[in-house]
Amino acid sequence: MTNPRFSFSIAATDGKARTGAIQMRRGEIRTPAFMPVGTAATVKAMRPAEVRAAGADIILGNTYHLMLRPGAERVARLGGLHAFMGWDRPILTDSGGYQVMSLSALTKMSEEGVAFSSHIDGSRHMLTPERSMEIQRLLDSDIVMAFDECTRNGCTHDEAAKSMERSMRWAKRSRDGFDAGAEHAERAALFGIQQGSLDEGLRRISAEKLIDIGFDGYAVGGLAVGEGQEAMFATLDFAPGMLPADKPRYLMGVGKPDDIVGAVERGIDMFDCVLPTRSGRNGQAFTWAGPLNIRNARFAEDKGPLDPRCGCPVCTTWSRAYLHHLVKAGEMLGAMLMTQHNIHFYQALMQGIRDSIAIGRFQGFAADFRRDYQRA
Amino acid sequence: MTNPRFSFSIAATDGKARTGAIQMRRGEIRTPAFMPVGTAATVKAMRPAEVRAAGADIILGNTYHLMLRPGAERVARLGGLHAFMGWDRPILTDSGGYQVMSLSALTKMSEEGVAFSSHIDGSRHMLTPERSMEIQRLLDSDIVMAFDECTRNGCTHDEAAKSMERSMRWAKRSRDGFDAGAEHAERAALFGIQQGSLDEGLRRISAEKLIDIGFDGYAVGGLAVGEGQEAMFATLDFAPGMLPADKPRYLMGVGKPDDIVGAVERGIDMFDCVLPTRSGRNGQAFTWAGPLNIRNARFAEDKGPLDPRCGCPVCTTWSRAYLHHLVKAGEMLGAMLMTQHNIHFYQALMQGIRDSIAIGRFQGFAADFRRDYQRA
Repeated sequence: MTNPRFSFSIAATDGKARTGAIQMRRGEIRTPAFMPVGTAATVKAMRPAEVRAAGADIILGNTYHLMLRPGAERVARLGGLHAFMGWDRPILTDSGGYQVMSLSALTKMSEEGVAFSSHIDGSRHMLTPERSMEIQRLLDSDIVMAFDECTRNGCTHDEAAKSMERSMRWAKRSRDGFDAGAEHAERAALFGIQQGSLDEGLRRISAEKLIDIGFDGYAVGGLAVGEGQEAMFATLDFAPGMLPADKPRYLMGVGKPDDIVGAVERGIDMFDCVLPTRSGRNGQAFTWAGPLNIRNARFAEDKGPLDPRCGCPVCTTWSRAYLHHLVKAGEMLGAMLMTQHNIHFYQALMQGIRDSIAIGRFQGFAADFRRDYQRA
Repeated sequence: MTNPRFSFSIAATDGKARTGAIQMRRGEIRTPAFMPVGTAATVKAMRPAEVRAAGADIILGNTYHLMLRPGAERVARLGGLHAFMGWDRPILTDSGGYQVMSLSALTKMSEEGVAFSSHIDGSRHMLTPERSMEIQRLLDSDIVMAFDECTRNGCTHDEAAKSMERSMRWAKRSRDGFDAGAEHAERAALFGIQQGSLDEGLRRISAEKLIDIGFDGYAVGGLAVGEGQEAMFATLDFAPGMLPADKPRYLMGVGKPDDIVGAVERGIDMFDCVLPTRSGRNGQAFTWAGPLNIRNARFAEDKGPLDPRCGCPVCTTWSRAYLHHLVKAGEMLGAMLMTQHNIHFYQALMQGIRDSIAIGRFQGFAADFRRDYQRA
């Protein structure tokens, strides 16, 4: 039996929190899901088998980075992103819309799209909804994201409205561009992205326009851009409920462990964030007792594991003292092991979330988590 | 049955080449053996299990690096080097004599030993034969190297003689220092190091003095320091034969694959070198067809494995095109995979050497190797 193109089923709910699974051709994605970020065709410092062993069902690839290096056409000639990097399960690709504004230079935005200079070699490129769909098709992405403009934090209501309206026009062009690649569209899914900043009225208009176009899943975009957790949660109190209950809801670029718990509580099913990988390379570990920086001198002779409650290969093999030494000495193995632990921690967090929703005690899980997790 | 402290048996010889095994408490070392270098308590970019899976029976640790960071006393408090880094098989430690001269600053050499400033923080330290033995004991090294002076390349006969004579006095002090640590001496082995530069007469005197003191194994020191392969081989034509035939002979800091084949041909049993790890991080791969630099543009769309004759996890999973991308993009996974392949290649080379000696066709193996291996 062939897996379906895309099917989402909710097995249990607890308040607004839901647990279930997305079935796709390349495998199942248990939700709520956390997607490790594999920016440049690699989850940094991790082999694909290690990412999978940590419990990840799906990873994220970045259109912006991959279009510049090694190039989408090249990836296609090499058999697509999965074969290229050796990951055979689902991959979600972003549209490039966010990174083109945050990473590239000399950007020129128009109704057509965004012209920009590569942050790698200065070469000129153009991203439009149509080109973004083409790139994600060349990569053979499983979940394609609509091309949108990420509205900046702190803008006026008028700016937020204009930006959202443009993103909705681009959402329609993304839908058409995606559908035009008929062969790929038969095996991949397309997600729309809700915008509207922190404004309830704009979020509603955006949701209605997206539903009108029709997508396989819906992302809440434009959050985690500097507004703070309180404002983010206030927006998540209303935004996810405007999106179809029978489709997955994806909060882009989030976040810290407590952000994730609070967002699941508000009806979110999918997450991605560079935190576990980037922090790992910087010596920060996520633990059930909160984050810790392994460079701290108090760990120099600490024989205990990074996290006594963690069963990952790092915590069952090496001491804090060894990790402290590796990170202080700038050894690559330090970044490798810290990243591996963090990816495991995030996946264990999602497993705890899923399990507690399934048995109807998510509120208890969240309360226990918040009691133990002390953010420094 | 407990493994012996140290026993070396030769299973087969072919010309001067020998194959056999060293038995030690922590495991067997098949010879000829290549020891990956784990400078700062890590074989760079490799987990211990990956080093073992590549076929390594023993790794090398550096006394100089470890005494400075994290410190030998600290490693001892943390249970010794094996527990600290998670490698339970034999570890050979060098004496620090070579690195103190090549890496540290403000060195002051005397009959007593070497005073120096740390290359990490400028702190003042002193290495003597006695302190080197103490450090290697604190690390709980399995094979301890005598503290010596690595005679510089291009010195006069008189300089070489004076330097060798001092190293021989230090060899005796090393033997006494090692034996003074009675408990450790009951489970570890001590190797002496022959010096004498390229001079046959000095090499003979050095060998006789070492044999007079008595060691578990004997290293040929002072080679691979810039003299070139021809001069090194000319010295290896006579130097190993001066050392006891029933003890392992170790050529320190060697080398390139063709150096190793030529040295085995001349009676060497053990090797160590940073080449497979350091080159891997720089994008150079060793293959049966010679070295290649994966950064070369011709690999950008090469779907083939790094080395078609290699069965390592890297060559059976990823393409040259992917490795080219990772290394060009500065991705850590690039260094990890290139290192993993190189360590596998070196171990496969040693396996090929051992197997061919065992069946009496080492000359054929060496000829085939040289025909295929084209050094760029």
